[in-house]
Amino acid sequence: MRNDLVASLDIGGTKIAGALVDSGGRLLARAQRPTRAQSGAAQVAGALSEVLDELAAAPDWHRAGAVGIGSAGPVDAKAGSVSPVNIPSWRDYPLVAQVREHAGGLPVTLVGDGVALAAAEHWQGAARGRTGALCMVVSTGVGGGLVLGGQVHPGPTGNAGHIGHISVDMNGGLCACGSRGCVESIASGPSIARFAQEQGWRPGTDGDGTAEAVAASARAGDPVAVAAFDRAARALAAGIAATATLVEIEIAVIGGGVAGAGEVLFAPLRRELGRYATLSFVQGLEIAPAQMGTDAGLVGAAAACWKLLENGSRGPGAA
Amino acid sequence: MRNDLVASLDIGGTKIAGALVDSGGRLLARAQRPTRAQSGAAQVAGALSEVLDELAAAPDWHRAGAVGIGSAGPVDAKAGSVSPVNIPSWRDYPLVAQVREHAGGLPVTLVGDGVALAAAEHWQGAARGRTGALCMVVSTGVGGGLVLGGQVHPGPTGNAGHIGHISVDMNGGLCACGSRGCVESIASGPSIARFAQEQGWRPGTDGDGTAEAVAASARAGDPVAVAAFDRAARALAAGIAATATLVEIEIAVIGGGVAGAGEVLFAPLRRELGRYATLSFVQGLEIAPAQMGTDAGLVGAAAACWKLLENGSRGPGAA
Repeated sequence: MRNDLVASLDIGGTKIAGALVDSGGRLLARAQRPTRAQSGAAQVAGALSEVLDELAAAPDWHRAGAVGIGSAGPVDAKAGSVSPVNIPSWRDYPLVAQVREHAGGLPVTLVGDGVALAAAEHWQGAARGRTGALCMVVSTGVGGGLVLGGQVHPGPTGNAGHIGHISVDMNGGLCACGSRGCVESIASGPSIARFAQEQGWRPGTDGDGTAEAVAASARAGDPVAVAAFDRAARALAAGIAATATLVEIEIAVIGGGVAGAGEVLFAPLRRELGRYATLSFVQGLEIAPAQMGTDAGLVGAAAACWKLLENGSRGPGAA
Repeated sequence: MRNDLVASLDIGGTKIAGALVDSGGRLLARAQRPTRAQSGAAQVAGALSEVLDELAAAPDWHRAGAVGIGSAGPVDAKAGSVSPVNIPSWRDYPLVAQVREHAGGLPVTLVGDGVALAAAEHWQGAARGRTGALCMVVSTGVGGGLVLGGQVHPGPTGNAGHIGHISVDMNGGLCACGSRGCVESIASGPSIARFAQEQGWRPGTDGDGTAEAVAASARAGDPVAVAAFDRAARALAAGIAATATLVEIEIAVIGGGVAGAGEVLFAPLRRELGRYATLSFVQGLEIAPAQMGTDAGLVGAAAACWKLLENGSRGPGAA
């Protein structure tokens, strides 16, 4: 039987991963290469080609009816190109054309990695069955994707849900994106660690100055470390409340390394959410940890591919 | 011919207006009563009944196949009730049931007034033909509604697009809603006037201390008045940029009394938008003044009614 699988690609700054994914979200074959993000455009493209070649050699490849790509952003789904912040040599890189050619002309769907994550959590994770959801990663960066009206909302260019770069402190510090007071510039791991150190927190004897070490200090009651997580929680709460107020969501799902700190983050986050999500229609908003693991990107790219094809009334494999 | 009109209701703190609206957006009959917002629930309901009675007496009433309501919020489209901030006696008021009964069992659609406004601008105004749009009112309050994927997005409860109550200054002043640094608490007319007076601006000999008078001073070059509009523009820009970053919109349409200040508001707004809307996929965002006039609420409630009925594959008059 043909066309009952999707070939899925997860393109990030560290690795390029691929898989064949079935309609139950199972990964039947996998391939992975380092991105070598600081190398030239052709080298990065070479890593991608190797991943595709390895997948195409899998016995089930002939069952694949479409290719779904989740890529570090920004992406441009209209143009079929990507300009990932963390892959400097790819600027307006024609990713969809390369993949389509390499995959023998199969239809290709491109979304941002935050959108893929939301598609994965909506399909099989913490946002399953929800009409409206925001799914986030809080890690080195802050990203996300949206489910609206029971469907993933990629937006026309595939970048919707980019909560890391909304301003919750319009007079705040400059963000790498050029704006001020963005959620990412306050709540990302490096931002938490930087703020803690500015306020006098110091790494222990192991020299670990990451947000994970700040979380350990907070757990041990260090007031500066607690304050650093409270501030991050406030920024996340303001951003999540803004999203709920703008589009109506029932749940915010949060994954990524910083979310791994657990209650050190989630306890102040729930408290602060009560302060910012005040209108009647957002008061019931739930917060939940992400359920999908390290394969979320691959599963999500497959899910987004299928859902977008379905929304266009086409099954995988349709032209 | 029956079912070719919609009965439309616009419920605000000052007046309750009604009309019969045809498929071209023309108003064939009108009725209006003062809301008497500070009176009891039954008195307000009485004013609404009078409006409906007057419409029902119009010769074209038999052509109406549905009723569309745009109401001051928050509304609860799921429950069919409203709790308008500016009509204190109506809390969880069963508006849809009252209207349905009064209108002989016609189907009734309820949305917030910001959603109705967006529906009007998308149907016949500045957002016509747009896939993604935010339509706002900047006046005594700040409200709005969204167009996503080429359709009005009311959200499950009919309140989506509530941009006035997203926080753009998470450590800022308390807002009436209980949150901090909301767009409305910085950019509404009263907020602009209050800030200007706090900074030393004084009304002229006519004693006019409104945002309109501050705008006149700004036009004459008064630096404090200019600063008050710059600050409001910054809050609006941060909120509009956040919306575009979250859901991808092409255009933000702005109406209401404060927007009537013209370039005193729009010039700094365009400048500040360039500072907050930095990511590639939001850089092309347009800003435009609203085109719909004082009937926007009535036209929009009719438009929302038709569009929501269409989305459910039903024409006006379907059960």
